[in-house]
Amino acid sequence: MQPVLHYLKQHQDRFVAELGDYLRFASVSAQPQHKPDLLACAQWLVKHCQHLGLDASLRPTAGHPIVVAKTKRAKNSGKPHYLVYGHYDVQPPEPLELWTTPPFEPRIAGRNLFARGSTDNKGQNFAHLKAVEAYLKTGTPLPCDLTFVLEGEEEVGSKSLSGFLKQHRAELACDAIVVSDTGMPAPNCPALTYALRGIIAFEITLRGPARDLHSGIFGGAVENPAMALSQLLAKVRDEKGRIKIPGFYDGVAPLSKYEREQIKRYPLSDMKLKKLLGATKLFGEKGFTATEQRSSRPTFEINGLTSGYQGEGSKTIVPAWARAKITCRLVPNQKPAHVRKIVCAWLKQNCPPTVRLEITAGHGAEAYLVSPTSRPAQAALRALEKAFGTKPILMREGGSIPIVNEFKKVLGADTLLLGIGLPDDNAHSPDEKFNLDCFAGGQRMSAFLWQELAG
Amino acid sequence: MQPVLHYLKQHQDRFVAELGDYLRFASVSAQPQHKPDLLACAQWLVKHCQHLGLDASLRPTAGHPIVVAKTKRAKNSGKPHYLVYGHYDVQPPEPLELWTTPPFEPRIAGRNLFARGSTDNKGQNFAHLKAVEAYLKTGTPLPCDLTFVLEGEEEVGSKSLSGFLKQHRAELACDAIVVSDTGMPAPNCPALTYALRGIIAFEITLRGPARDLHSGIFGGAVENPAMALSQLLAKVRDEKGRIKIPGFYDGVAPLSKYEREQIKRYPLSDMKLKKLLGATKLFGEKGFTATEQRSSRPTFEINGLTSGYQGEGSKTIVPAWARAKITCRLVPNQKPAHVRKIVCAWLKQNCPPTVRLEITAGHGAEAYLVSPTSRPAQAALRALEKAFGTKPILMREGGSIPIVNEFKKVLGADTLLLGIGLPDDNAHSPDEKFNLDCFAGGQRMSAFLWQELAG
Repeated sequence: MQPVLHYLKQHQDRFVAELGDYLRFASVSAQPQHKPDLLACAQWLVKHCQHLGLDASLRPTAGHPIVVAKTKRAKNSGKPHYLVYGHYDVQPPEPLELWTTPPFEPRIAGRNLFARGSTDNKGQNFAHLKAVEAYLKTGTPLPCDLTFVLEGEEEVGSKSLSGFLKQHRAELACDAIVVSDTGMPAPNCPALTYALRGIIAFEITLRGPARDLHSGIFGGAVENPAMALSQLLAKVRDEKGRIKIPGFYDGVAPLSKYEREQIKRYPLSDMKLKKLLGATKLFGEKGFTATEQRSSRPTFEINGLTSGYQGEGSKTIVPAWARAKITCRLVPNQKPAHVRKIVCAWLKQNCPPTVRLEITAGHGAEAYLVSPTSRPAQAALRALEKAFGTKPILMREGGSIPIVNEFKKVLGADTLLLGIGLPDDNAHSPDEKFNLDCFAGGQRMSAFLWQELAG
Repeated sequence: MQPVLHYLKQHQDRFVAELGDYLRFASVSAQPQHKPDLLACAQWLVKHCQHLGLDASLRPTAGHPIVVAKTKRAKNSGKPHYLVYGHYDVQPPEPLELWTTPPFEPRIAGRNLFARGSTDNKGQNFAHLKAVEAYLKTGTPLPCDLTFVLEGEEEVGSKSLSGFLKQHRAELACDAIVVSDTGMPAPNCPALTYALRGIIAFEITLRGPARDLHSGIFGGAVENPAMALSQLLAKVRDEKGRIKIPGFYDGVAPLSKYEREQIKRYPLSDMKLKKLLGATKLFGEKGFTATEQRSSRPTFEINGLTSGYQGEGSKTIVPAWARAKITCRLVPNQKPAHVRKIVCAWLKQNCPPTVRLEITAGHGAEAYLVSPTSRPAQAALRALEKAFGTKPILMREGGSIPIVNEFKKVLGADTLLLGIGLPDDNAHSPDEKFNLDCFAGGQRMSAFLWQELAG
């Protein structure tokens, strides 16, 4: 391993410069105008992988293409085969005015690299590519066969990947999948994530009058859809943070004593979290710590509100409609289809007759839970400890990576979640960044991982 | 009067074409980029008035200029002096995609002229100018001295006009002010409006975390400002349509039996109103008819909601802030400053400690109420009857014309509200229009009015 580790150490500056090139693509999958940027980014990735010595190709889909890159391998090598999954698409960068520098012009300040997609997920998947580069360029034998699967639709629900997995089931058959798209609490505190939250996304629109009305001439005799929406949404949550929709918590398994103890090891106090978020006060479901709330409990979150006039000054109207974008985070044992059904039924039942309710369904994904005591999980814990020089923690993470359930369903394989993002990385927020020590540590972790998994 | 009426009849086509020219100016006072359009519109008006034979001039203000146009008069003519007030600024035209044709490209269909500002207020003030033109061009002696005051800031609170009135108190001293900026129920049903609602405008912003947060990583442990805003706004109104803020109805005088009877004469059934508005159901404060609700009761109206992500697709965030634009309509005896104070205090008191509340105050105006039995009001009723050939109704209107209170305060004069807009004119809405029969009737009404007032 010494040549591999030495190579990684020697080439950090170049790796950071290459990651900068990767980050310059505005690969925003939610916004149709960025389709050419996604294609250009995928083509750049293919070339980069080929340059490292991988068999890489662009696989077209109905949406954005998938990049597949494999280590060259002997037939029936007998080596274990692992997939490394990541995504090259990114969240929308808006609101642009809140970025210190433009989101697609990478900037280094101290040990941080700022750019949209830096931590979620380009920087994290690039760390794995650099570890393989170190093996290949130093002529160190890789003890595993590896296949990188880098998709362009993760931020919009991975619509094409599921079909792709089914279509290429034999080619992608593997012992496990490795994903770095989660977090670790601090640069000196590596983590193995053993659970993820699921998600359902939808949009509700309440329609009142046929058009915006003069609020002087008509206001008072007709429902205001923005008020109706506020009153409908207000009923969803009680003052203690509990979701009041009957059945919402169906199937949610209580946290075991062991799990609550593991979660307590998470090194971020409520005080520190409050400071990190810049909130005046933390708020969440009574009876749970902040770390439990955001990792192990379901939520009903309003992601956006739109109604009426939003420009400068005032416009005295009763708006014709009001809309909310909503996502619910789900936890293990909650079924997305069931939660969607009861939430939609409740909304319909509670919507006043003065407005018409329209619900547009978005993506959905089950939560994920694996055993942290399995052989691959133990190998991963050893790799983390060797790479970062400190004992890793076990954690549940609040985000959703819908595709891990597809991996289990289609390929029958578990996923190792070995995230190297930090809580203050501003994923999905303005001024997203990636810590360069985590980048380097992630490369070492990946290098050790193939030894430990094969060992 | 015959030459005047004949002249009006002969020149309708030209008048409509001229009104089209007036409507082509995008004089949107709320939007700074339209400042040059307001100036161009005001300059066009000055030239047009001069062309009619009026002494017209542009009066600069700190905001948009005021157009003043006077009939030429002998010193100490002994004639009564009336002001005709109107405004050449218009509401923002957004949402543009809901207009059948562009808002500043006037279009005639049947007896309607479609354009932003057609009914509110360009078409209405232009009717008065055309009546004066008929007097002047036919050499018919005008029995009154007239001064037109056409401002460019009505839709943003008439900020400059009040100071202008004070500065030119002597020049503008008058027997009464005539304003056509209200409505009549139908083209064959003229109306004198004897009351208007007042208004207070404000904007509230609830701020939570310092930036938009990843709803997976942090959702559940921090307040969602969009939910906090919904819950705060939801508390404002009960399920029967009554505003729950204590003291909100302070001073509201109950409607007298006589007034309720007058309001009953308003020829628009609930069924017709529902159809006109395109609502599935009417909704308003229990114990009042729809016409009472929208003319004689105060409201708390959400004009706009803004929070988080509003683009295509989804963005899984806890938004950093949520905002509502709000106006309350007020009725006679409610004091705007008092209502603003109790509403703001209530919002502060009811805002949860998990978010910071910011309130930005907008414009405000008292409600207006005059006697419909005064000598000028009786003269106006006779002019309406002669112009439209049918007995006018007395009505309260729900809109606000803040400046009528300033006229009373500064000039000590009452205002005659002789609106010629129709309920389906889409004032403040897409596809705003003005009825050409109302335009012609309004010109006749104005012509008769000066005779009746002087008589």
